[in-house]
Amino acid sequence: MLELYHHGSSVCAAKVRFAANEKGIEIDRYHYVDILKGEQFTRKFRSINPNSVVPSLVHDGKVINESTLICEYLDEVFPGPPLQPTDPYARYRMRLWTKVVDELLHPACADLTYVSCHRHIMLRLSPAELEASFENTPEHSVKGAWRQRKRELVTLGFDAPGVAGKFRLYADQLAAMEAALSRHDWLAGDAFSLADISLAPYVNRLDMLSMSGLWSGGRLPRVAEWFERIKARPSFKPAFLDWCPPELTEDLARFGAASWPTVQAIVGVGGDATRD
Amino acid sequence: MLELYHHGSSVCAAKVRFAANEKGIEIDRYHYVDILKGEQFTRKFRSINPNSVVPSLVHDGKVINESTLICEYLDEVFPGPPLQPTDPYARYRMRLWTKVVDELLHPACADLTYVSCHRHIMLRLSPAELEASFENTPEHSVKGAWRQRKRELVTLGFDAPGVAGKFRLYADQLAAMEAALSRHDWLAGDAFSLADISLAPYVNRLDMLSMSGLWSGGRLPRVAEWFERIKARPSFKPAFLDWCPPELTEDLARFGAASWPTVQAIVGVGGDATRD
Repeated sequence: MLELYHHGSSVCAAKVRFAANEKGIEIDRYHYVDILKGEQFTRKFRSINPNSVVPSLVHDGKVINESTLICEYLDEVFPGPPLQPTDPYARYRMRLWTKVVDELLHPACADLTYVSCHRHIMLRLSPAELEASFENTPEHSVKGAWRQRKRELVTLGFDAPGVAGKFRLYADQLAAMEAALSRHDWLAGDAFSLADISLAPYVNRLDMLSMSGLWSGGRLPRVAEWFERIKARPSFKPAFLDWCPPELTEDLARFGAASWPTVQAIVGVGGDATRD
Repeated sequence: MLELYHHGSSVCAAKVRFAANEKGIEIDRYHYVDILKGEQFTRKFRSINPNSVVPSLVHDGKVINESTLICEYLDEVFPGPPLQPTDPYARYRMRLWTKVVDELLHPACADLTYVSCHRHIMLRLSPAELEASFENTPEHSVKGAWRQRKRELVTLGFDAPGVAGKFRLYADQLAAMEAALSRHDWLAGDAFSLADISLAPYVNRLDMLSMSGLWSGGRLPRVAEWFERIKARPSFKPAFLDWCPPELTEDLARFGAASWPTVQAIVGVGGDATRD
């Protein structure tokens, strides 16, 4: 029995769905945790995931948390195409990418998504509802201030401390991807691996935010071509697009496009927003 | 040809030396990078480790960074006792511990060591030398403000923002170790693994800071007994103690003991400092 606790717009949940699809693993039961409504803070979900973040996998009663570790677990327990290189140095490169995602790109993505889109969704709330939403957020996560940071991101947007640096970090990692893809076909080597699976949700997030101008138009041609290959995989659409509620897909595209000129100014990129 | 760039007091370097010793791997050449003198910021070292942190491993010309990834690489490339469980769920538990170390405990340890000891070493400098030392530190690491944070830790000590929370996080992880050790002999299962290797330097740091009162005296008996087993391994002393310059060992013990009452007040632990 394989159960996945997830959400439609979570980059980490998309990563796990992508890995499962690539392996041909069927999830027996999906539990939708609406993180935009605060369902990750319920006592029931926290008994599975004490850090209140999706996704969580439950395999025959055993809880596996942290998307990177879930992907490694799925690859090692289930049959299907291997997603980790056998060469130890390629494995090292793969793990370095998943580490960059977990420690740098993921926190950057959270800030980026909040200031570009989610803050506008939250600002539709009445002042009392907005305040209740802040109060429902724990004061601290294991990594530091949570409630106060959410408040800053929603009320100050791009002017919140550190936000510009997060966009530059994101742009730097896209440039590092371009360099890696000049050396081999996929991020960790000549085979598709968990490195590609880990990065795909973060590039897709920019794409859904109408910000593919960060690599398109000849800017980072290898990243552009890599992402086309990712999107062409049969596993992509069910993992990335089908679970995202249509109104959220629309909000990401629209608010993202409106944020694009500010992003361009921060990272020094020309061109128009890429909303279709 | 196996080369290790390291430092005597770096927790991450000790982790790699511990893993290499456990595997019976001989390092052909050690390069000592004096991080207290800022040698990690030289152009030469940054060509190996762009983030200016030790350790780095160079194996037949291939660079491997990040201590957790170095340990996995050593385990997978060299013969000797395996340091990763074969059972996938035990591997998951092992990886969860190494992830907690990398993402939570390591940043906490850096702050804890600075305010308890290193700040006092730095305050021996003249004001001009101290200022030069700050200016020599890059403004930002990949994870955020670096120079400003070092300045805060040195000038404000325990009053620097967030420091108390880091000590509580450390105490919480010791409690989590106690819980894990109630379920199996070692942190990830019934066999010694990279989980134990990852945690050992962080417990040893507290021990060298005369702060073993956090687990001794019956407070966390399983952690106390686990650490005795760790110290009894022949690999321990050469990995952990022999590389630490004697004057630094003395400073850690003395300044740590002087900091102990403040630590006790923060984490709510009684008892005397444990300096021998």
